[in-house]
Amino acid sequence: MTSDSSSANLASAPRVSERATVPAEIVRYNGSETSTVKDTLAVEEPLEMQLAHGSEAATQTKSISVTMRTPGRDFELAAGFLMTEGVVRDAADIVDISYVSGEAAADRTDEEYEGSILPYQPQRNVVLVALAPDVKVSLANLERNFYTTSSCGICGKASLLALRTVCPPRRSNTLEVCADVIYQLPEALRKAQSVFDQTGGLHAAGLFNSRGELLSIREDVGRHNAVDKLLGAEFLADRTPLRDRLLFLSGRASFELLQKSVMAGIPMVVSVGAPSSLAVQVAREFDITLAGFLRGDHFNVYHGASRIRPSLNLP
Amino acid sequence: MTSDSSSANLASAPRVSERATVPAEIVRYNGSETSTVKDTLAVEEPLEMQLAHGSEAATQTKSISVTMRTPGRDFELAAGFLMTEGVVRDAADIVDISYVSGEAAADRTDEEYEGSILPYQPQRNVVLVALAPDVKVSLANLERNFYTTSSCGICGKASLLALRTVCPPRRSNTLEVCADVIYQLPEALRKAQSVFDQTGGLHAAGLFNSRGELLSIREDVGRHNAVDKLLGAEFLADRTPLRDRLLFLSGRASFELLQKSVMAGIPMVVSVGAPSSLAVQVAREFDITLAGFLRGDHFNVYHGASRIRPSLNLP
Repeated sequence: MTSDSSSANLASAPRVSERATVPAEIVRYNGSETSTVKDTLAVEEPLEMQLAHGSEAATQTKSISVTMRTPGRDFELAAGFLMTEGVVRDAADIVDISYVSGEAAADRTDEEYEGSILPYQPQRNVVLVALAPDVKVSLANLERNFYTTSSCGICGKASLLALRTVCPPRRSNTLEVCADVIYQLPEALRKAQSVFDQTGGLHAAGLFNSRGELLSIREDVGRHNAVDKLLGAEFLADRTPLRDRLLFLSGRASFELLQKSVMAGIPMVVSVGAPSSLAVQVAREFDITLAGFLRGDHFNVYHGASRIRPSLNLP
Repeated sequence: MTSDSSSANLASAPRVSERATVPAEIVRYNGSETSTVKDTLAVEEPLEMQLAHGSEAATQTKSISVTMRTPGRDFELAAGFLMTEGVVRDAADIVDISYVSGEAAADRTDEEYEGSILPYQPQRNVVLVALAPDVKVSLANLERNFYTTSSCGICGKASLLALRTVCPPRRSNTLEVCADVIYQLPEALRKAQSVFDQTGGLHAAGLFNSRGELLSIREDVGRHNAVDKLLGAEFLADRTPLRDRLLFLSGRASFELLQKSVMAGIPMVVSVGAPSSLAVQVAREFDITLAGFLRGDHFNVYHGASRIRPSLNLP
């Protein structure tokens, strides 16, 4: 798919939807004082993903997922979700991505948002992804895969077993970074974060090269969404697998985030928070370097320390 | 349902499954030094929930959800999930909760966990909830409701509209707390957290009374699971709706966590992190006091400040 979703030139500030934040009046308690002040909230809205597949003569459309997300980068979110689920493997598998508008969508959702404090636009909360005719989609499997999503990780059918089945074959790669590069990741991400600074309510994911240069950043109320948006942009630009890239996460490393990294071919994941046991297991099985608890000039490596050279700086 | 899941006497340390953590050997980078040390990980494993309903003559069993969770308190997790989804409304609606064992479950999951670093017990990862014969379950609705779960919030069908339909009617309540009580919540929760201290990888949810006394605490890799476990225990002990209780969250406040509070009748939610726009909207619509960004002696109130008396302490 050719698209304007390329993130090649996004090393500066990320493009964030104007719908990503909303103002709110709050009461601030500070010691024994209270005051009413204006504040900014991170917007959380549902996004429904629909899939159109089959031949032109017999196209089937099916709703496959609803997720709560921060509006913006919705096409990348859909593409990243489908890629990390193994539904699509190549940018050419996606023919078109568009918002679904019209009465059907509006009728259903307007009522839900009656009296909303949000600048709600139902025509921007349903995305339709049209797949190439030769892409085989098993709806039965899809339903099982999408049974649960979000931070719960991809479960049921799409468990470790499924991950082994659909993941790209392991290939040797030569990514190697210096510990000093790792130490500087949080500051690099923070400088580029826009919404977080306003609301404090978003997770961020950043894509870096081995020299620690930020190539792309995405923010979302859901950490899985931030990663889907980030990887979806790379996928749409035909840059996956990302064999010489490092994924940096502002939060914790769960099974699902490692699973997404496997699908995108990423050899190194660094998180500010702790990894779960299953995240470490995926890292070991698929030989992904997994570092966590990055604070100041220290971090822990749970697998694959050989890709991280110790700092040469003397204390 | 009579059960041993009561949390009446849990003001001290929470009961945590011996499967909640797992040891791991890691490489610690500290400035220019590296060392190999032993560490502890929070366990993340899938839990499948099955529902048995209908008359004795024609019982139907259906898998309704799979979620990644920290093992332990699984029956409470299942009960809390069903209660906050509106599937059950009274403890008597649940006749029995048990683990599913036998070859079927083992066959399916053992292969997935081959070579696992975890003390994996497939017979402890599938829970069957038997409902009373008079509980009406719409499987079509269930499928839609459970399409996505976890931190993504309850979406699609079970959106704000659905929440209005199934939520308990609003009743006036007299809960009122002093700001000083709020300031002390993080310390009270931290003292009672067991797994977090070891792994740093868990979310915690605490239930408090208006005097700031901790009544119950649950921890999980998923913040929604921690809340489900907490509320499930209260539900099984027939203590819902919790009209004079305060829910404290170690993380952020999303739509789903507010939705769960609505279903449990809780009038006040306090979080360490930021709330999303939709969380604030639910708080307004259902008149739940929502406070966030609790740090030291300050916090923000997004709705319902009238339930929080300013501190009388002079600076």
